[in-house]
Order: sequence, then C-alpha cells, then structure tokens
Amino acid sequence: MLNAKKPLPFPEPTLSDADKKAMEEIGKQIQRAQLLNELSEIKRLEPIYEKRQQFVRKIPKFWITAMLRHAGLALDLKNEEDQRVLQSLVDIAVQRNQTEPRVYNLEFTFSQNPFFEDRILRKKYEFNESSTRKKESADREGFKWTMLDFDWDDDVKALPCKINWKPGKNLSKKYAKVVDEDGDIDELGSFFNWFESDGDAFDIYSQPAAIKMADELSFITGDNGSETTLSRSSTPPDIPHPPAPVVQIPGPLKYVYITFINSGHHTVTVSWEVSSGPTSATQTIQVPPRSEEFYPFEAGKEYELSFKKKRYNPYKEK
Amino acid sequence: MLNAKKPLPFPEPTLSDADKKAMEEIGKQIQRAQLLNELSEIKRLEPIYEKRQQFVRKIPKFWITAMLRHAGLALDLKNEEDQRVLQSLVDIAVQRNQTEPRVYNLEFTFSQNPFFEDRILRKKYEFNESSTRKKESADREGFKWTMLDFDWDDDVKALPCKINWKPGKNLSKKYAKVVDEDGDIDELGSFFNWFESDGDAFDIYSQPAAIKMADELSFITGDNGSETTLSRSSTPPDIPHPPAPVVQIPGPLKYVYITFINSGHHTVTVSWEVSSGPTSATQTIQVPPRSEEFYPFEAGKEYELSFKKKRYNPYKEK
Repeated sequence: MLNAKKPLPFPEPTLSDADKKAMEEIGKQIQRAQLLNELSEIKRLEPIYEKRQQFVRKIPKFWITAMLRHAGLALDLKNEEDQRVLQSLVDIAVQRNQTEPRVYNLEFTFSQNPFFEDRILRKKYEFNESSTRKKESADREGFKWTMLDFDWDDDVKALPCKINWKPGKNLSKKYAKVVDEDGDIDELGSFFNWFESDGDAFDIYSQPAAIKMADELSFITGDNGSETTLSRSSTPPDIPHPPAPVVQIPGPLKYVYITFINSGHHTVTVSWEVSSGPTSATQTIQVPPRSEEFYPFEAGKEYELSFKKKRYNPYKEK
Repeated sequence: MLNAKKPLPFPEPTLSDADKKAMEEIGKQIQRAQLLNELSEIKRLEPIYEKRQQFVRKIPKFWITAMLRHAGLALDLKNEEDQRVLQSLVDIAVQRNQTEPRVYNLEFTFSQNPFFEDRILRKKYEFNESSTRKKESADREGFKWTMLDFDWDDDVKALPCKINWKPGKNLSKKYAKVVDEDGDIDELGSFFNWFESDGDAFDIYSQPAAIKMADELSFITGDNGSETTLSRSSTPPDIPHPPAPVVQIPGPLKYVYITFINSGHHTVTVSWEVSSGPTSATQTIQVPPRSEEFYPFEAGKEYELSFKKKRYNPYKEK
C-alpha cells in the first residue's frame, strides 16, 4: 500500500507570514479583476439580450417551446395543463438588482388564459446586503471587497408570488409538491408551485431562465430542431439527439453528451439499461451539480434512461 | 416503447428566413460581447499576474512544487531526473501574441544545472492568422468578426525547441515518448520531450502553465498543503485530500472531487476498485475533457484508483 501523503523530493518550501499575506493580496486582486469583468459582461450583454427579448416576443409559442426543449426544465413540465398555460407565456423579463447585478427578478408576462387572472407573475429574488457591505465604500470602479463574499444561497431569498387562480383551476393544488420526511422534495408537481412557494424548487435562478432559455432558440431555428429532452449529443455530430427515456444509438460506439441543469443543491441519479442487443446491463451514476458529461453508449442498442433528482446534501449519511 | 422524437403538444413553431437571419445576427452580437469581455479580462489580469510572477521568483523551488502539486502535470513528472532539473526552474513567463492575445509563448528560465547549457527554453505557439482575418478591418473596439472563428487546434502550431544537453544528459532520449501504431501517445516520457517535439503532448497550452500553475501556490501557502495528487476533495471540507492511487475514505459516504486537466483531446479512464470492506467492486468511468467532478466514495474503505489517458477521438470505432 502506498503512503497517503507523497512527500516532495526536496524539503517542503515554506513562506514567511509576510509573504503569505502578500500572496493572499495578489489572490484577492485576481478575484477583484475577475468579478469586475463578470459585472462588465453583464452590462455589455444587457442591451443585446433586450433586443433578443423583443424579437422573441414576436415568435408565437417561443417560450413554451424553449422550455420544453430546455435541458432540465422539460423534465419538470410533464403535465399537460402546465404546458397549456405556458402556451400563453409571451415574455420573460430579467430585472437586475441595482446593488448586486448578479441578482435579478424574473417577470413572466402571460396573455389571457383560462387558468388565472394575472397577466404578470413575478418571481422575486431578494438580495440581503450585509451591513458590512453597506458600510464599505466602493472604489473608483464601483468595487467593494465585500462583494467577493457574495453567495447566492446565503444572501438571496426567493419570495413566493400569489397567483389569482380561476375557480377550479389551481394547478399548484392539483399537482402539489411532495416533500419527504427530511424536507427534501420528492416530486416538484406543477411548475406554478415555483411561483407560489418560498424558495426556488426548480432552481430557475441558476439558469437564469430568460437568458439561458432564449439560448435554446437554436432549437427552433433549426440546428437542434429535433431536440426534445434533457439530454443532447454533441459529438460526433451525426448522432441524433437522444430522446429520453429510450435512446437508440445507430452508429458505432458513441459518446453522448448529457447536460444536467441543476443548481448545486441536487444530485441526479441517471440509470441506464441496455434493453436490446446481445447483452443487458444496468448502470447507475450519480451526476454532480452543474454537470455536462460525455457518457459512453453502445451502437445498435436501445437504452432505457431514468432520471431521479434528489436534493443534494453531502453531509447526509447514507 | 416510446417514440424517438417526442413531438411538441402544439404545431412546431417556424421562423421565416428573415427572422432566422435576425436571430443569427443577435447570436453573433452575443458572441462578440463575450469575446471582447474575454480579451478585456486578459488585459485586466496581466499586470496582476506579472506582479505575482515577480513575487513567485523569490520563492525557492516554487515552480517544481507547483508542478508536482498541479492536477494533471504531477502525473507526467514521474521520473526523478525531470524533477531534479525542474528544481532549477526559476521562472515561467507568458508572452501573449500581439495579434491574438488568446495565443502565447511560454518562456522557462532555469538556473545553471547539470543537464543542459540553456538558461531559457521557449515553447512557442505560432498563430497562423487566416488571410480573411488579415483583410478584415477591426471595429472601434478592436473586434473583427473573423476572430470568432479562432480555434486553437486549427490556428495554432506548437513549435519544437532545441535543448543543448550536456554529454550523456539527454533526458528526452533517456525517457523517450512512446507512440502506438495509430500515432496515439502511449507514454509521454520525459517532460522535456514537450520542448523538443512538435505539438503539445502534455497539453500545456490548455492550462496555460504559468497562470494556472501559479494558482497552485495555495498548495504552498497552506490551504492545500497536504495535496499531492491529481485529485482533490472539496466537500465536505473535513475529508483529507485523497491521494492517488489508493484512497482511504475515513468518514461516512463522501463525495470526492476529482479534477482532470486535459485539453479536450484526451479522455481519461478512471477505474476504482474497493479493495477492503465487506464488498468488492470495480467501476470504470470515462472522464471527459476538462472535467471536474464529484464522485461518490464509501466510508471506511480503500479505493485503488488507476488512470489511463488516451488521445480522444470520438469518431474512432472501438
């Protein structure tokens, strides 16, 4: 058995405390530059995204199409009634927080529909600025060191939004969220639970919906026209996009690119089973948060895929 | 059996050709903004990296330590003589290409050593600007549309650098590169083959060495002081960093974070075997390029890890 700690072939270099401090300072300067750059990218992209948003509004059923073809979201839009309401979704607007542009509200505009009275549903993400951050004054570039401490989970709270359902049409009740004894969500139910609940069960914040979903427009413009699932293949370009839950791989051994969109609070278990061909096998893997992966699939076989989403808790014992 | 293509619950939206063109235009504007932002980040970080570089020069054996503790590189620095020469490496400088700042040369400065006469070894990456790009004039922000076509593999050539070895000291010969019948590299041999060969067998370009390796300084400054391997654990924070190839997981079920640094031209196969405890099992996964992953490991067991690096060719049949 090998040693747990492989020593260096020379004495371990050590740094004086002053040097350590100097290095930490440089590390912070790097983080500062990266954050300022992130913020400038948000600004740079904003007018272009706005232009796109206006364009997209003209395309009938754009949003429901993008959502049904969006990696991840499609999984959560299984019920027909959700799909029917979302056909009347005409716009999703992103409103960035003035103090912290990494935080934004999402404003969903609907045309008249048989389900609720509202024309606008707002999912608000409330940014709680710490008192130390409030006190710190920004430098010339608008930067505060406390901005590096920003953490979505700690500093942002997703607020519920009341929906004025028409009589007998409350989809959040009809398709209720199912929570297990640990408080983990077993079944998300109607998409509209996302508006009406505290928190962000669909992890839309990590997408963010209006930006990322509109990127799915390529599914309409043709490049990815046949995509319907949470998985997509990227190499080689001649494999059809694998639809879940059954995938038929036509060529030789292929790698299939699967994208999982989740926020870092879930693990996804993907099982696949070879349901035809000479062999039969089951494989289950745990897919980490924010994952994009190549998975090997074998040609001429069918794969039955099943996906289970579970809130991620690395501290929880099995 | 389900249909391969799941239809939308309404007629497929279609776009007019004019609309498609307009959307493509917006898509290109987004790419332009992102690239300009990438270039401005390079500029913003340059003076900070230079400061760090000067600081790092004062730390004895900084570079060899960073390399031996660098995810990926450590794997390729197995022979003692490579390690001995690299103890005389005092500086790695990044020199960016004026025309295409995404391309750079790496200049390795050595103190006197018993192996070669040179004080400087240069790994040059030659950027071949296309004639269409040459012809296009840049806009006010220095942007050309042809810049979006930049592709490292197609547009950049890594050049060999002659090393003036002292008699009997040629490590590139002593530890030669082994290439299989398909031209794939089976064994990288001495690190100095990287200088003396065409191309970039160690995929340093994707790191880029001087920037990313200096980030490994945290391994010296203490945070990651016990790290010696290509794998690292990130959650929960109390697991010791798993050393390869044998990992002993002390706590309950844990996720171990493994980082693979490779360029997109390799797949890495990781196999692990539970070598103690009530069960015994082997698992092999294919790890995609540029991968950082959580893998589940079980407590109180030992895992034997083995890694196989193979040039990636998705079109190749098995």
